[in-house]
Amino acid sequence: MATPQHEVTSATPASTSPTAIRVALLGCGVVGTEVVRLLTTQRDDLTARIGATPELVGIAVQNLETERDPIIDRSLLTTDAEELVTRADIVVEVMGGLDTAGPLLHRAISHGAAVVTANKELLAKQGADLHNAADAAGVDLYFEAAVAGAIPLIRPVRESLAGDRIDRILGIVNGTTNYVLDQMTKTGANFDDVVAEAQRLGYAEADPTADVGGHDAAAKAAILASLAFHTHVTASDVSCEGITGITAEDVKWSKETGHVIKLLAIAERIKNNGTEAVSVRVHPALVPNSHPLANVDGAFNAVFIEAQAAGPLMFYGQGAGGAPTASAVVGDLVSAARHRVLGGTGPQRSSYAEIPILPAGEVRTHFQLRLRVADEPGVLAQVSQQLAEQQVSIETVRQILDQRPLDERAAESETPTAELVVTTHEASEAALAQTVEALEGLDVVTKIISILRVEGA
Amino acid sequence: MATPQHEVTSATPASTSPTAIRVALLGCGVVGTEVVRLLTTQRDDLTARIGATPELVGIAVQNLETERDPIIDRSLLTTDAEELVTRADIVVEVMGGLDTAGPLLHRAISHGAAVVTANKELLAKQGADLHNAADAAGVDLYFEAAVAGAIPLIRPVRESLAGDRIDRILGIVNGTTNYVLDQMTKTGANFDDVVAEAQRLGYAEADPTADVGGHDAAAKAAILASLAFHTHVTASDVSCEGITGITAEDVKWSKETGHVIKLLAIAERIKNNGTEAVSVRVHPALVPNSHPLANVDGAFNAVFIEAQAAGPLMFYGQGAGGAPTASAVVGDLVSAARHRVLGGTGPQRSSYAEIPILPAGEVRTHFQLRLRVADEPGVLAQVSQQLAEQQVSIETVRQILDQRPLDERAAESETPTAELVVTTHEASEAALAQTVEALEGLDVVTKIISILRVEGA
Repeated sequence: MATPQHEVTSATPASTSPTAIRVALLGCGVVGTEVVRLLTTQRDDLTARIGATPELVGIAVQNLETERDPIIDRSLLTTDAEELVTRADIVVEVMGGLDTAGPLLHRAISHGAAVVTANKELLAKQGADLHNAADAAGVDLYFEAAVAGAIPLIRPVRESLAGDRIDRILGIVNGTTNYVLDQMTKTGANFDDVVAEAQRLGYAEADPTADVGGHDAAAKAAILASLAFHTHVTASDVSCEGITGITAEDVKWSKETGHVIKLLAIAERIKNNGTEAVSVRVHPALVPNSHPLANVDGAFNAVFIEAQAAGPLMFYGQGAGGAPTASAVVGDLVSAARHRVLGGTGPQRSSYAEIPILPAGEVRTHFQLRLRVADEPGVLAQVSQQLAEQQVSIETVRQILDQRPLDERAAESETPTAELVVTTHEASEAALAQTVEALEGLDVVTKIISILRVEGA
Repeated sequence: MATPQHEVTSATPASTSPTAIRVALLGCGVVGTEVVRLLTTQRDDLTARIGATPELVGIAVQNLETERDPIIDRSLLTTDAEELVTRADIVVEVMGGLDTAGPLLHRAISHGAAVVTANKELLAKQGADLHNAADAAGVDLYFEAAVAGAIPLIRPVRESLAGDRIDRILGIVNGTTNYVLDQMTKTGANFDDVVAEAQRLGYAEADPTADVGGHDAAAKAAILASLAFHTHVTASDVSCEGITGITAEDVKWSKETGHVIKLLAIAERIKNNGTEAVSVRVHPALVPNSHPLANVDGAFNAVFIEAQAAGPLMFYGQGAGGAPTASAVVGDLVSAARHRVLGGTGPQRSSYAEIPILPAGEVRTHFQLRLRVADEPGVLAQVSQQLAEQQVSIETVRQILDQRPLDERAAESETPTAELVVTTHEASEAALAQTVEALEGLDVVTKIISILRVEGA
């Protein structure tokens, strides 16, 4: 990872006055505008809570001419972000992206400013550099808004659970995919149609790849895993599968088996052959209806945490949107500002535990396989045999008569078929892949319809 | 409130060495034992997270001879708590009660120690004194475990939401009552039988008054309201009604109308005739099945928060028990210890807003009234008239034929009766009380069967 290329000045506190805290805002989109609204409408309350007034000293934007909400004082707008960050006590970054934001935040830190950022991509890819710089400079680096929007999650994981041992995190941390899966569940519509509708309603981007491909959730998983396990996990350590392969039939079947399909960000601490490893991954999964995450619908986010002493915990709320994200940003700003007034900083990075990443093939979970098979005696025996040979143990099997229209069936196979829904006990990804390969080689298996993981059982 | 009666020495940090943090534990019951277990089993991790080793220097107990878990090093036991608190950097109080714990914590603070306490009663009744002492001494006062056990809640309300404006908190914060109501819902049994069973299973105390009377929840409501609204709320400001009056029939009826009965701790910020007031109360309420709190069953706790920018948030987890409570305690201990190592303190008390308490009669909510009435024409008109005269607006009315056995009916009234279930729009407690009085005066109303508030609609 590249070292930041800029001058480093001494990190003396840059406050001009003990009665004011200078705040620089980088970015003035939906979130930035709501940050300004909170700083403006809650000014007296924030002043009382901090013990000094948070004064917005500038807002860095790309284009001074863009039309903006009337709450924005246009005299604060500047295109010179590099200069702006040198005259602030706290730099709030809500512009996103790597190439501009990264160097600007390093520059801010090197000038002694505390940093509040909502930039999950930057944290997931270059978080270690940023943490190291902040620790060296003795300034705060807060990022509550980077994961699960308004939900207080980073602070609880980083501080409240610092005396406990977190074993597992299961998170619904992407509102777009949760909305899409939810609509597929409620309406029975297929993926493409729901995404098109979500785009029309503004719930999905014109290019939805980062969301539906799972990449947004993967960045958040890396951030959460690093904090929860006190180790280094970057976006590239996260194995990632999106929801583009989820069909209306998968959704229909999830209901039949008492599940709901969710895109999960998963971080697990695992004993692997006596040594410890972490698995960090994003994929769609069948979640039992009885699990607290199953009821999280629409654009809401929720994160389920299992800690050894605390037991199960869940955090629920809005994961995106201007005002909810701004709530998290300004909460961090108040913490950083209080430290400016009272001295000290928040907890530094805790990454003493260098825990290796578990190879994707060694991850163990439950699977649900749906197979189209010949409708003849002995098929189940053959299928069971293949699973047993790969040490994949069957938990339940259900056989369903083929209910498709005759012409559709005939196009695929001339012999009568049935469907098998096999749920496995815990098995490794590698064993499952080998099992699938073996099943594909069986004459009696005409098609592997779907393979879905089951989580939270 | 009494001023603490003891000498005040200078608050110089008492750490003997930068590599160790001296921890004194007051109390060694279920929670204290689990605190020791975490400090012992997680010692290396805690040391890495803090940057110094948390060393248990003593455990104050009432009786040195009591049999204890083998994790307890008996050489640390002492009956001299007053001496113990003078030789610690952090004093952890899990003994409970007011008379002994209060002066001990003041003594600890005056000797420069940070305090971590799970003592909700002390905080709700004498919290202001304790906060003032801690702020004056420049030491941390943490109390995550005092409300909702393992659930990170105090820190999110106090820090994460410090940039937002909390309007309302609805909490299931007492596991015993939630378990009792849950069992009444699941089995149809009556209150006394379920409480007896809960006592047998260890889910309820031999004297369950503090729980079923709502007093435990009221202390927690006071603590949450103070933090959320940056004001002073003490236990005596909380209007409190327990669950002893909830009948099996109430529970049955809640199901029929799509609700579940929960004991709620409620803190609301209200505009009352143009000025702001807070209502803090504890009472059983009908919660719609669709509300996230409705699914919180068994001994779990959950707290639902509505903030202006963040929107709805929910926090869920175990509200009691040794290990869960210890998780919260040791999380606080790590925060306080980090401050000892790195300098600074956590956020001080923020109680700048002196918001008056709304008189109980002015609280506005929805009500469900169940009335036994004469089964004759014109009854609904008479009942409606009485509500209208008190400005209580009806949302729905449902009339049910009397399904009781004939002999039971005859014992109460000689004429045929029916039952009316009336749900109101928002009305004040005072107006509702007057309405009930007026209804009792009607010849056609033979009995007011129950009055329940509806929350979370």
